[in-house]
Amino acid sequence: MGERVLSSESIYKGRILELKVFDVELPSGRETRREIVEHPGAVAMVPLLDGGKVALVIQFRLAAGVELLEIPAGTLRRGEDPVECARRELIEEIGYEAGSLEPLAEFFLAPGYSTELMRLYLARDLRRVGQRLDADEQIRVVEMDMADAWGLVERGGIRDAKTIVGLALALQRLGGRGSA
Amino acid sequence: MGERVLSSESIYKGRILELKVFDVELPSGRETRREIVEHPGAVAMVPLLDGGKVALVIQFRLAAGVELLEIPAGTLRRGEDPVECARRELIEEIGYEAGSLEPLAEFFLAPGYSTELMRLYLARDLRRVGQRLDADEQIRVVEMDMADAWGLVERGGIRDAKTIVGLALALQRLGGRGSA
Repeated sequence: MGERVLSSESIYKGRILELKVFDVELPSGRETRREIVEHPGAVAMVPLLDGGKVALVIQFRLAAGVELLEIPAGTLRRGEDPVECARRELIEEIGYEAGSLEPLAEFFLAPGYSTELMRLYLARDLRRVGQRLDADEQIRVVEMDMADAWGLVERGGIRDAKTIVGLALALQRLGGRGSA
Repeated sequence: MGERVLSSESIYKGRILELKVFDVELPSGRETRREIVEHPGAVAMVPLLDGGKVALVIQFRLAAGVELLEIPAGTLRRGEDPVECARRELIEEIGYEAGSLEPLAEFFLAPGYSTELMRLYLARDLRRVGQRLDADEQIRVVEMDMADAWGLVERGGIRDAKTIVGLALALQRLGGRGSA
């Protein structure tokens, strides 16, 4: 059921993204064009604090045009191990070092046009070491009960796919919804 | 906390995506560049069949390099009402007409670089009318118990963000996890 790539062209290679256009042949023999964003992949973490709290980040997202409330996340550097990336991003974005990073899931965010694969972790045994933001990041940290965070999902106050996935799977892992 | 756009350039305008590069000024006064994919927005539907079953689709995704198991979804046409788009895509992809489409959530898929906003619906009162695929779509439909679909999420057999969000919120709406 695959698609045979007939030709590809790199349209733009930027700081994070590369846009490519592929001409492909479908199993039916018909040809079509696919516009694909190549992305190095990313990690996202549900940071579990004492007392059933979770640490979230608020940042302005130009693509959304608003501030969004999200779990911490980051893009893989070239050749970087995802767990190391998760550990680094937790320190940078929220200022906590993780004693353990349990894999929760791996998923594509927009497989119709983006190669980005997101690896999701439950971060536990967190130790405060102080936030170390990149120069172009403006991030505020919010700590709240997991149950309150899930309430925000229900009321439309959290509008980010990886964050909804992360909270749902973390709540399940922690026994919120039966077998895990 | 916003970012002031200093200039923008359209790099590529394709069939679905437009890639733009923005030079922005951060609140700190520092300048940086944002690579943004402009997307018309999309819909995704959790189609609830008789007996607690859900209809999923399997399709090869060039960006993922594999076939993925997903809930039905589609891109908004210019000026199209999202509910009408959801109704149309359900007929095209799985061959069911929906008697009701309840909003479950709205979320960004990759707000770091994509404007795509996904609107998610629970589709009920489904009536079989026959699949009507676009010429460049090769889609197989799979019907399974919601509980089995969630089991696939847990075991890594479903690796698509909107599908995990859709199943989690549909299960909750249907009473799978307390207050909704």
